[in-house]
Amino acid sequence: MGFYSLRRGPDKYEISLPAFIIKICGGMPMPVSPTFFPGFKNRPLLKSVQVAAPEQPFRLTTGGQLSEVTVAYETYGTLSPEKNNVILVVHALTGDSHPAAHNEQDEEGWWDLLVGPGRPLDSERFFIICSNVLGGCQGTTGPASPDPATGQPYGMQFPAITVRDMVNVQKALLEQLGINHLALVIGGSMGGMQALEWAVSYPGFADAVVAIAAPGYASPQSIAYNRVGRQAVMLDPDWQQGNYYGGPGPARGLSIARAVGMITYQSEQSMTNKFARKMRDGQFEVENYLDHQGQRLAERFDANSYLYLLRALDLYDLGHGYASYKAALARIEARVLVVGVTSDILYPAQQQIELVQTLKSLGVRAEYAEVDSPHGHDGFLIDFDLLRPILTDFIATVTPVRFPGFPAAFRATRMAYFGARLLPENYP
Amino acid sequence: MGFYSLRRGPDKYEISLPAFIIKICGGMPMPVSPTFFPGFKNRPLLKSVQVAAPEQPFRLTTGGQLSEVTVAYETYGTLSPEKNNVILVVHALTGDSHPAAHNEQDEEGWWDLLVGPGRPLDSERFFIICSNVLGGCQGTTGPASPDPATGQPYGMQFPAITVRDMVNVQKALLEQLGINHLALVIGGSMGGMQALEWAVSYPGFADAVVAIAAPGYASPQSIAYNRVGRQAVMLDPDWQQGNYYGGPGPARGLSIARAVGMITYQSEQSMTNKFARKMRDGQFEVENYLDHQGQRLAERFDANSYLYLLRALDLYDLGHGYASYKAALARIEARVLVVGVTSDILYPAQQQIELVQTLKSLGVRAEYAEVDSPHGHDGFLIDFDLLRPILTDFIATVTPVRFPGFPAAFRATRMAYFGARLLPENYP
Repeated sequence: MGFYSLRRGPDKYEISLPAFIIKICGGMPMPVSPTFFPGFKNRPLLKSVQVAAPEQPFRLTTGGQLSEVTVAYETYGTLSPEKNNVILVVHALTGDSHPAAHNEQDEEGWWDLLVGPGRPLDSERFFIICSNVLGGCQGTTGPASPDPATGQPYGMQFPAITVRDMVNVQKALLEQLGINHLALVIGGSMGGMQALEWAVSYPGFADAVVAIAAPGYASPQSIAYNRVGRQAVMLDPDWQQGNYYGGPGPARGLSIARAVGMITYQSEQSMTNKFARKMRDGQFEVENYLDHQGQRLAERFDANSYLYLLRALDLYDLGHGYASYKAALARIEARVLVVGVTSDILYPAQQQIELVQTLKSLGVRAEYAEVDSPHGHDGFLIDFDLLRPILTDFIATVTPVRFPGFPAAFRATRMAYFGARLLPENYP
Repeated sequence: MGFYSLRRGPDKYEISLPAFIIKICGGMPMPVSPTFFPGFKNRPLLKSVQVAAPEQPFRLTTGGQLSEVTVAYETYGTLSPEKNNVILVVHALTGDSHPAAHNEQDEEGWWDLLVGPGRPLDSERFFIICSNVLGGCQGTTGPASPDPATGQPYGMQFPAITVRDMVNVQKALLEQLGINHLALVIGGSMGGMQALEWAVSYPGFADAVVAIAAPGYASPQSIAYNRVGRQAVMLDPDWQQGNYYGGPGPARGLSIARAVGMITYQSEQSMTNKFARKMRDGQFEVENYLDHQGQRLAERFDANSYLYLLRALDLYDLGHGYASYKAALARIEARVLVVGVTSDILYPAQQQIELVQTLKSLGVRAEYAEVDSPHGHDGFLIDFDLLRPILTDFIATVTPVRFPGFPAAFRATRMAYFGARLLPENYP
């Protein structure tokens, strides 16, 4: 599963490969960050850049700093000569830099039906960038990365991070890529929070942001769910105060944490539709499902990353550091689309409605759209048929065609192609 | 905290008191069941009876049996000579046999404002019985009770139990007390499930049942929450496969399980009202609150009991063992009042509405009332002002005054007294 193995030394873990693996990206060799997390998936088209170094550390909003930050990212489409066709896609809690397959051989992404040629985030029109978040475990610096001071994994020595730090790292990535303007930032859940933070932190940088199933700040209920998840991970004897690298790791605790997540991502209705009271192997099917989801997450996600990212969700508050919540929102210059899912129990639609009302009252160009679905919070990863027209319309409005070389007939063809693809792509 | 201490022997736990403590109850000595749970609260007016013995074991619906069952209970008011004024109050998950204080010196109960002289469950009119459920840890046989076969606590050797078993034990208790008719069975949450099971299992035994915030069967979502709680308890190294008696016990795991419960008992709105995003001692207030609630539960509730009762909730399905769910409901002869709480996220009001619709379609005399409250599932323990008129009206309808010796003037006085008490009792 991992791209290199770990050996337990007498008193420390050792990485068995040279510190940096050289990948070829766009003709340029790019380093991929080392990590002690064996579930790291080094995708064929993963690229990375270093956005902080000991002589230029990355300052965190909580006061700490990181003397090295590597960002892993993927891109789709081509950057226009004017560099005015960039869309930043930002991922949710356990997502990564891979929203879509790059080609037919490539693995499916978490937003495959929305990203690609002829899709709402059209890689034939836009240059789409998606990076793994700070604190993550899929290539960007996080708790499983080696602490430059010791060469050992940070573990719980990793500093507390916030959604704003994630955004600042993305900003640093764009600077390295020579991009100083975004047509759009878009994401769901924690991705939606990042999109909104972008709008507040860097007014004028993005023309538009789309935040799906994301509020303006984390509610105490969502903090409570996250606390349960974190406590479960830390209760696992295999967690070892975060120093589990090279050992089995807190798979059972992480599985419980994931179960909490999976419940809050769905709805009473969707779980009833899926599982009813069916039993198998002496358990309810819903229990088998949670076990399975938990095991899967433990294989692909670092438990310490999970702890840090949950905390970042808790700390998320657009108003933090500003005179007031409204003062923060009033900074926004981008056009804002907020999308709620009717059955979302984690970040209920009402929170998004209130956000849009507040934005409008402040003169921000904001609009609200609702996905009427029983799928709960996960609707943003499931209800593509409902999201597609909402996103297509919004993107068409905020990013008028700006490519003089783009013949209208070709666009019409694309639309026809897009229409033709709608049927087979229908979510069952 | 406990009424006797435990000593760890070389290879087993020993109870340091004689097996039975003799209590005086209604002039008769009654045994109180021994338990290995140190948080057992032996209340002054707690009574108990033995409803199963080795020569007459208690058969469980899951196929197992218990060769000894003791039931702890409390009573309020006086049994009429005709034995026709009995109300059975049934408690929720972590409740006990103490719904109300017996006198001014007595500790407050969990339904104090609803049970007592002049209150909806009027101890001047009714003989009110409340027993600790089978599988519990407050006097009735449960996992912390000594297994007669070994003298050691059952722990995980306790057989699986269901809500129907709880009801069957209550039936056996009533038989021992010579009661063969109930005016009313009433309870909320798991208590509401027991009330409905009473109506299905013993048609004609109770004139009426009131089920508050309880569905006709457990939904997969509620099962999922319970699974998280159980897994957390069992992940705690101090759980020791259930053999923790005499040791510290899985307080941390139980605290996590309780946190899941506390979240589902409240609502997004009520948690926001209470905690907002306030912080104290480096944590969000909602986290401090969950910690506190978890610690409190670990002191007063046996973790193994918690496991068994959560499982009983999962297994709860009125239709179990009948030709169909409807066939089970069609057995009901009692008048049924089902009360939902608008903001309940654990057993949403919609589940109760559907239950009443089904009951009505089968010709059962059922009605639905709704408590419009932001308090979520816990509304049944909080919204007394909203519950009081609903219960008073229903009880007046289903239990017309049947005591010839009861002068009308006295009743009017009682009503005035009741009215006068309303104000100071208002929930803030």
